[in-house]
Formats: sequence, C-alpha cells, structure tokens
Amino acid sequence: MVRSARAALKGHKPAVVWLTGLSGAGKTTIARHAEALLIARGAHTMALDGDILRSGLNQDLSFGASDRKENVRRVAEVAKLMTDAGLIVLCALISPYRAERDFARSLFEKGAFVEAFVDTPIEVCMARDPKGLYRRALAGELRDFTGIDQRYEPPLSPELTLRTVGRPAEELAEELVKTLAPFL
Amino acid sequence: MVRSARAALKGHKPAVVWLTGLSGAGKTTIARHAEALLIARGAHTMALDGDILRSGLNQDLSFGASDRKENVRRVAEVAKLMTDAGLIVLCALISPYRAERDFARSLFEKGAFVEAFVDTPIEVCMARDPKGLYRRALAGELRDFTGIDQRYEPPLSPELTLRTVGRPAEELAEELVKTLAPFL
Repeated sequence: MVRSARAALKGHKPAVVWLTGLSGAGKTTIARHAEALLIARGAHTMALDGDILRSGLNQDLSFGASDRKENVRRVAEVAKLMTDAGLIVLCALISPYRAERDFARSLFEKGAFVEAFVDTPIEVCMARDPKGLYRRALAGELRDFTGIDQRYEPPLSPELTLRTVGRPAEELAEELVKTLAPFL
Repeated sequence: MVRSARAALKGHKPAVVWLTGLSGAGKTTIARHAEALLIARGAHTMALDGDILRSGLNQDLSFGASDRKENVRRVAEVAKLMTDAGLIVLCALISPYRAERDFARSLFEKGAFVEAFVDTPIEVCMARDPKGLYRRALAGELRDFTGIDQRYEPPLSPELTLRTVGRPAEELAEELVKTLAPFL
C-alpha cells in the first residue's frame, strides 16, 4: 500500500537498469548522462556506481571472486530497496559473472530489470584506460583485474546492448532512456 | 549538481531519522506512521527496517557484537545513498551501541541526522513481546538478545526522545514529523 503510494507520488514506475561491462567500457559515463536525461524528465533517479560504493557500503570487500559476488549482491539489494522507494535506479558496475547478475534480476518484478551490456572490446578499454588500471594490471601491480586475470562473462540475452565504439555516450544514454519508456 | 537537481525535484531537503531502542520499543510502528504522514505531505520517504533488512542486504549477519556493528554500518551507508537520492529516510533498528550510531551520524551533513530514542522500559517491551522474542531469549533459545545478554546503550543527547508508555504511536509519529519541519 505504502509502496504504491510512493510510486504514485513520483508519477512513474520504479525500475532498475543494470549496466555491466569491462572496466573502462563506459558504464559510469552512460549512467551519468542517462541520469541527467531522466531527472530532466522529472523521473526520480539514482545512480549506483560500483567504484563509489566501494568507498562506502562495500569498502570491506576485495576484488577476489567471492568478494565480487558479495559486492554485486549488496548493490542488487540496495537497488531493490531503492525501487521499493519508487526510484529509477541505474547501477553501473562491472559485475563480471552471469550468476550474480541473474541473482540481481531475480530480486525484481518481471520486466522491471533491464540488463544493459556496455559492449566495448577490451583493446579499446585498454587504449582508453581512463584510470591507468589496465597499465597497472598488466604490470602486475593490480591483481584480480577483470579481463586480465579474472574472467568477464558477457550477458547472453541482455535487454539492451550498447556498443560504444564510434558512438558518443550522450547518444547511448538516449537509447537507454528510450528503453525505459514503459516506466515513464 | 545532480544531487541538488534531485533535491529540487522533490521539493524538500533530504534527512535521516534514526530510531533506536530496544526490541519491542515501538520503532517500526512509529516509523510506519511517520512514513504515511510524510508521504501524505508529498515528501519522498523511505523506511529502512532492521528486521526487513536482515532478510535481504544483511541476511549474512548474525546478532553477535561484531555483526551488529556491520549491520548498523550497512544500514547507515544505505541511508546515506538514499539521502543522496534526495529522500527522507526513516531507519528503525535497535542499533544498540553508541559508537555505531555516532558512525552513522558522521556520514551526514550537520543537522540532517535526527537521532530519535524510542524510550520504552524493558519491562514494558517484555510485556508487549510482539514476536515472542523476549520469551525465547529468557528461555535460552535465543542468544545475543539486546537487553537480555547483550547491552543497550541509550543515547546521551538524542535530537528527540519518544517515550511510548501511554502515548499512541500516531501521536509520537506526529511529534517526529514536526522535528522534520526544517526539511519540509
């Protein structure tokens, strides 16, 4: 009852967009642009960024396989709480394993979870290397780095695939927001 | 920038009310009434309940002292994310230790954290015992139960003290919402 009252107050339905992809693929950039577009349309939106969460809620977690699972689990649970609060939630985190993304999906009503694969070839991510992380991983200074010494499992049937090469983030964000039309 | 845009969209300032007190003190009941009052006033509000969170985000945590600390830490971090999203957040959880409540407070801007002590004598909580937990704790079936074999540290200078004996939860919720006037 309270949940539907909250949704009614916001004038749109809650949903979660789960942006998955390699480090440097463009997840955060696309999420930030999409957030601005959604807020401009009056939609109550929150971006949950894997990197930022690691300085708060998930600061106790490493990048090892089991802590990565826990990282994804917690973000999924927080996203769930935020959709309960009526928000449109944009999660941007590598979330390398299919099983954990499927767990995240399982928390939401059918259709309210949009998996968006930010599809950028690793060579392009390495060339961009905005935080110098690939360089450090290749130099052996960083362990458990996705795509280098940890696997990334691409989604098999995501709701949305955003191929970033040659397309500006603004355009991809618009495409993402179009997918949310049924919620707005 | 995005943060202030979100707050502007909501028409009120974000804040967190942290309801602390013994099991059975009335935290959840007061929070639910306050949530309904706030939603009726058009304030975007979310209640975070310790018990409910233990079936999701915090399901991996026990009731031992160190897991209780982690429980409070995570709820505080989630509340922080939700105030970043522009919400008024009502946290209802025992949160027995001062140090952890002070940690929670430290995450928020000065004045945006309202500690509300739901002050009910343990004898009254025991008599109410809505979930039969005191009975089980006294029978030795539950360990680490606050007030029985774990300590509860009452707040020393909470922003609000809600003495529940002889006062209906609706009235206490109204008092709580009055405290939030500067945010509404």
